[in-house]
Amino acid sequence: MDNMTIIAVASIVIAGITTGFGTMGPALAEGKAVATALSSLAQQPDASATITRTLFVGLAMVESTAIYCFVISMILIFANPFWNHVIAQAIGK
Amino acid sequence: MDNMTIIAVASIVIAGITTGFGTMGPALAEGKAVATALSSLAQQPDASATITRTLFVGLAMVESTAIYCFVISMILIFANPFWNHVIAQAIGK
Amino acid sequence: MDNMTIIAVASIVIAGITTGFGTMGPALAEGKAVATALSSLAQQPDASATITRTLFVGLAMVESTAIYCFVISMILIFANPFWNHVIAQAIGK
Amino acid sequence: MDNMTIIAVASIVIAGITTGFGTMGPALAEGKAVATALSSLAQQPDASATITRTLFVGLAMVESTAIYCFVISMILIFANPFWNHVIAQAIGK
Amino acid sequence: MDNMTIIAVASIVIAGITTGFGTMGPALAEGKAVATALSSLAQQPDASATITRTLFVGLAMVESTAIYCFVISMILIFANPFWNHVIAQAIGK
Amino acid sequence: MDNMTIIAVASIVIAGITTGFGTMGPALAEGKAVATALSSLAQQPDASATITRTLFVGLAMVESTAIYCFVISMILIFANPFWNHVIAQAIGK
Amino acid sequence: MDNMTIIAVASIVIAGITTGFGTMGPALAEGKAVATALSSLAQQPDASATITRTLFVGLAMVESTAIYCFVISMILIFANPFWNHVIAQAIGK
Amino acid sequence: MDNMTIIAVASIVIAGITTGFGTMGPALAEGKAVATALSSLAQQPDASATITRTLFVGLAMVESTAIYCFVISMILIFANPFWNHVIAQAIGK
Amino acid sequence: MDNMTIIAVASIVIAGITTGFGTMGPALAEGKAVATALSSLAQQPDASATITRTLFVGLAMVESTAIYCFVISMILIFANPFWNHVIAQAIGK
Amino acid sequence: MDNMTIIAVASIVIAGITTGFGTMGPALAEGKAVATALSSLAQQPDASATITRTLFVGLAMVESTAIYCFVISMILIFANPFWNHVIAQAIGK
Amino acid sequence: MDNMTIIAVASIVIAGITTGFGTMGPALAEGKAVATALSSLAQQPDASATITRTLFVGLAMVESTAIYCFVISMILIFANPFWNHVIAQAIGK
Amino acid sequence: MDNMTIIAVASIVIAGITTGFGTMGPALAEGKAVATALSSLAQQPDASATITRTLFVGLAMVESTAIYCFVISMILIFANPFWNHVIAQAIGK
Amino acid sequence: MDNMTIIAVASIVIAGITTGFGTMGPALAEGKAVATALSSLAQQPDASATITRTLFVGLAMVESTAIYCFVISMILIFANPFWNHVIAQAIGK
Amino acid sequence: MDNMTIIAVASIVIAGITTGFGTMGPALAEGKAVATALSSLAQQPDASATITRTLFVGLAMVESTAIYCFVISMILIFANPFWNHVIAQAIGK
Repeated sequence: MDNMTIIAVASIVIAGITTGFGTMGPALAEGKAVATALSSLAQQPDASATITRTLFVGLAMVESTAIYCFVISMILIFANPFWNHVIAQAIGK
Repeated sequence: MDNMTIIAVASIVIAGITTGFGTMGPALAEGKAVATALSSLAQQPDASATITRTLFVGLAMVESTAIYCFVISMILIFANPFWNHVIAQAIGK
Repeated sequence: MDNMTIIAVASIVIAGITTGFGTMGPALAEGKAVATALSSLAQQPDASATITRTLFVGLAMVESTAIYCFVISMILIFANPFWNHVIAQAIGK
Repeated sequence: MDNMTIIAVASIVIAGITTGFGTMGPALAEGKAVATALSSLAQQPDASATITRTLFVGLAMVESTAIYCFVISMILIFANPFWNHVIAQAIGK
Repeated sequence: MDNMTIIAVASIVIAGITTGFGTMGPALAEGKAVATALSSLAQQPDASATITRTLFVGLAMVESTAIYCFVISMILIFANPFWNHVIAQAIGK
Repeated sequence: MDNMTIIAVASIVIAGITTGFGTMGPALAEGKAVATALSSLAQQPDASATITRTLFVGLAMVESTAIYCFVISMILIFANPFWNHVIAQAIGK
Repeated sequence: MDNMTIIAVASIVIAGITTGFGTMGPALAEGKAVATALSSLAQQPDASATITRTLFVGLAMVESTAIYCFVISMILIFANPFWNHVIAQAIGK
Repeated sequence: MDNMTIIAVASIVIAGITTGFGTMGPALAEGKAVATALSSLAQQPDASATITRTLFVGLAMVESTAIYCFVISMILIFANPFWNHVIAQAIGK
Repeated sequence: MDNMTIIAVASIVIAGITTGFGTMGPALAEGKAVATALSSLAQQPDASATITRTLFVGLAMVESTAIYCFVISMILIFANPFWNHVIAQAIGK
Repeated sequence: MDNMTIIAVASIVIAGITTGFGTMGPALAEGKAVATALSSLAQQPDASATITRTLFVGLAMVESTAIYCFVISMILIFANPFWNHVIAQAIGK
Repeated sequence: MDNMTIIAVASIVIAGITTGFGTMGPALAEGKAVATALSSLAQQPDASATITRTLFVGLAMVESTAIYCFVISMILIFANPFWNHVIAQAIGK
Repeated sequence: MDNMTIIAVASIVIAGITTGFGTMGPALAEGKAVATALSSLAQQPDASATITRTLFVGLAMVESTAIYCFVISMILIFANPFWNHVIAQAIGK
Repeated sequence: MDNMTIIAVASIVIAGITTGFGTMGPALAEGKAVATALSSLAQQPDASATITRTLFVGLAMVESTAIYCFVISMILIFANPFWNHVIAQAIGK
Repeated sequence: MDNMTIIAVASIVIAGITTGFGTMGPALAEGKAVATALSSLAQQPDASATITRTLFVGLAMVESTAIYCFVISMILIFANPFWNHVIAQAIGK
């Protein structure tokens, strides 16, 4: 295994794991928030405007943590500074 | 094992794990949201329009995290920049 | 172990694990949704049309995550680009 | 260990694990659905027709995920393309 | 370790694990279903015919997943195509 | 380690693990069923005939999964086809 | 390590693990059954005859799974066919 | 490491683990049974004779599984047939 | 593997793990906070101003821990002092 | 590592683990029993004599499993037959 | 791997793990505290001043443990005495 | 590593683990007992004498299991017979 | 790896782990205490002085365990007697 | 690695782990005790003297187990008999 391969493998593995595991938490959190929103709507239909607005703000906050993970994965696959360095090094050689 | 094989194996393994484990969270979250929607409908049948609409928006948010995982898997199998690099390198050799 | 064997083994292992573990989440989620549907029906038999329709839409959403896993497994067994590459390479040799 | 043996061992191991672990989720989910059906029947005996019908549709959906696992196991034991390839290769040699 | 031994060991190990772990889920699920049936009978003795019938159908569905595991184990011990292949190969040699 | 020893060790290990872990599930499930039966009897002493009968049918179903595990263990210790094969091979040598 | 020692070690290890872990499940199950029996007696002292009888039948069923484990351990220590085989082989040598 | 040492180490390790882990289950089960007995006594002081008697029978059943583990440990330390065999062999040499 | 590669791999792996796992806790915590906010709104619609304000302050506190993780990841990828040191060393050589 | 050292290390390790982990179960069980006793006393102060007596008998039963573990540890440290054997062997040499 | 690299890798790995895992606890704790604050506000809007003040003091205490972790990470990355020692040693050489 | 060092390391490691993990159980158990005592006092302040006395007896029982662990650790650090043996052996040499 | 490096690495790793994991428990405990304080305030606003005082004493006790961990980490990084010893040894050499 | 280094590393590692993990239990237990004290105060403000006194005695008992862990860590870092022995040995050499 030369250095380029090692870095490629590490990037592939971590890109997958970061998104694969890192989206579990947000998914469960969003599921819980949606579920409570639904039972709140059933209990107090008159407050549906406030409940829906608060739900969407909350989902956006939770989604942000899933997006952090996705961003890290995308950086590792398409804008990886370590990969760029070894490519540059290989060309310059 | 030459470099090409190592990258292929890493891509296969991570493609499977990312989708296999990464869809657990969304699946459970959707199950919870659907379950609460059903018990809310039973409790307040008159609010079925609001409940159904909120449920579908919520499911879409949760499904998005499952889709992040599926996208990573698809990129690793069919549009893997590291694999393309070693293929190009092998041809250019 | 030559390269072809390594890729075959990785594909077999991951095909099994992706489906074996990836269907746990959807199965539990569907079980929960069906269970709540049944207790909702017992509580409010008059809303059975709405409950059943929402249940089936929800089950379809949850089933979709199980199908992502099954699709990955099928691609790895029957339409694996890495396997095809090494086969083509072996023939061309 | 020659290549044929490695592929055989991987197929045996994964066939067992996929079915052994992959049926846990569906089994628990079906147990939950049946349990709720029984307590719903006790609570609302008049709705037994609707409850039973919904239960059977739900069990069929859940069972489908168990069947995905069983299908993967059967493919790996009796219709494994990788095994067929190495057998064909061994004969052609 | 020659090839025959490796395949024999893998078959023994997986036959045991598949049944040993794969029957946990069904056992717990059946225990839950039976337990709910008993408390439903205590709550609504008049519906005992419907409850008992639904219980038995449900137990049969759950038992089916345990039987999938047992079938895989039996195939691996007594009708293992990989074992048969190496035996045939050894005789033909 | 010759082949005979490896197969003997694998059989011993798996025979123990299959029964040791595989009986956990049934034991817990039976404990749950018996516990519910007792609290149902306390709640509805008049239905004791039906409750007891359903309990015994249920326990038999659950016990069946424990017996699958015990059967696999007994087959591996006393009627192991792989062991018989290597013994026959050793004598015939 | 000669073959005899390997088989002895495997038998010792598995004999301990099978009983050590395999009795956890039954112990917890019996504890649950006894606990429910006690609270049922407190709730319905008049049904003590039925409750006690059902409890003892249930405990016997649960204890049976613990006894399966103990039997496997005893067979592995005192009536191990694999050990007997290697002893016979060593004497006959 | 000669054979005698290996068997001694295996016996020491398993003797400790069997008792150390195998008594967790019974301890928790007895704790549960005692706890329920106490709350039952507080709820129905008049049934103290029946409750105490049933508690003691139940504790004896649960303790029996702890004693199985202790017996295995004692056999492995003080009456280990495998150890006796290697000692006899060493003397006879 | 030369030193530069080792440090690159360590940075990639830890950048992914820190964000991937470190955002689980905040995501679940935010999900819980949003869910309680929604059920509080349904219970006391008049206090919606105070509830919403407290929710946003709380979400900001929780989000801060997710941001600590993201910051560590960004430092490791784009401002890693150890990487800079080895690069400087390599140039100066 | 000579044989004496190996046996000494195994004895030290197992003595610690047996007591360290084996006392968790009894400790939690006693904590539960004491807690229930306290809430029972608060509920029914008149039955304090019976409750206290039953609690002490129960604690003694649970403590017995902790003592089994402590006894095994003490035997392994101060009365270890395997250690005595190797010491005797070393002197006799 | 020379000494400098080993220390750099250890610092990178531990800096990430300490923050990544160490912020889970505080995040969940803050989520719980915020959630209870919200439901308390809904239950007793008149006490909002006291509740908000106590919440902020509590969040500060919990945040302090997250900050301990972040401080350790920052020390390891930017003020690591072991790294400084080896750098000084390398220059002085 | 000579024998003396191995025994020293094993003693250090086990002394720490035995106390570190072995005190978790008692700590949680005491926390539970104290918590129940406090809620019992709030419910029945008149029985405070009996409750406090029973609490202290119970805490002493639970503390005893923590002390077993601490005693094992102290024996391993300051009165370790295996360490004394190797020291005596080293001096006598 | 020379001795100095090994001790440096061990100190870095353990300093991070001790604080990273050791602050989880206190964080969760403080979260629970704060949460209960808030719901107690909502239930009994008149007792806010006593509740707040008890809360702060309790938080201080819990924080003390987090501080033990932080102190160990600080000692390992900045006042490590083993590191000082090897430095002194290296200079004296 | 010479003997001195091994013992130093083992002492560092175990000192950190013992305090890092050993304080989790006490922290959670104290959190539970404080939480119950607060809700008891809210329920029965008149008994605040007794509740506070019992709480402090209980916290002291629980803290004692955390202190056992801290003491072991301190002994291992600053008064380690094994370390002193090897230092004495090194000087005497």
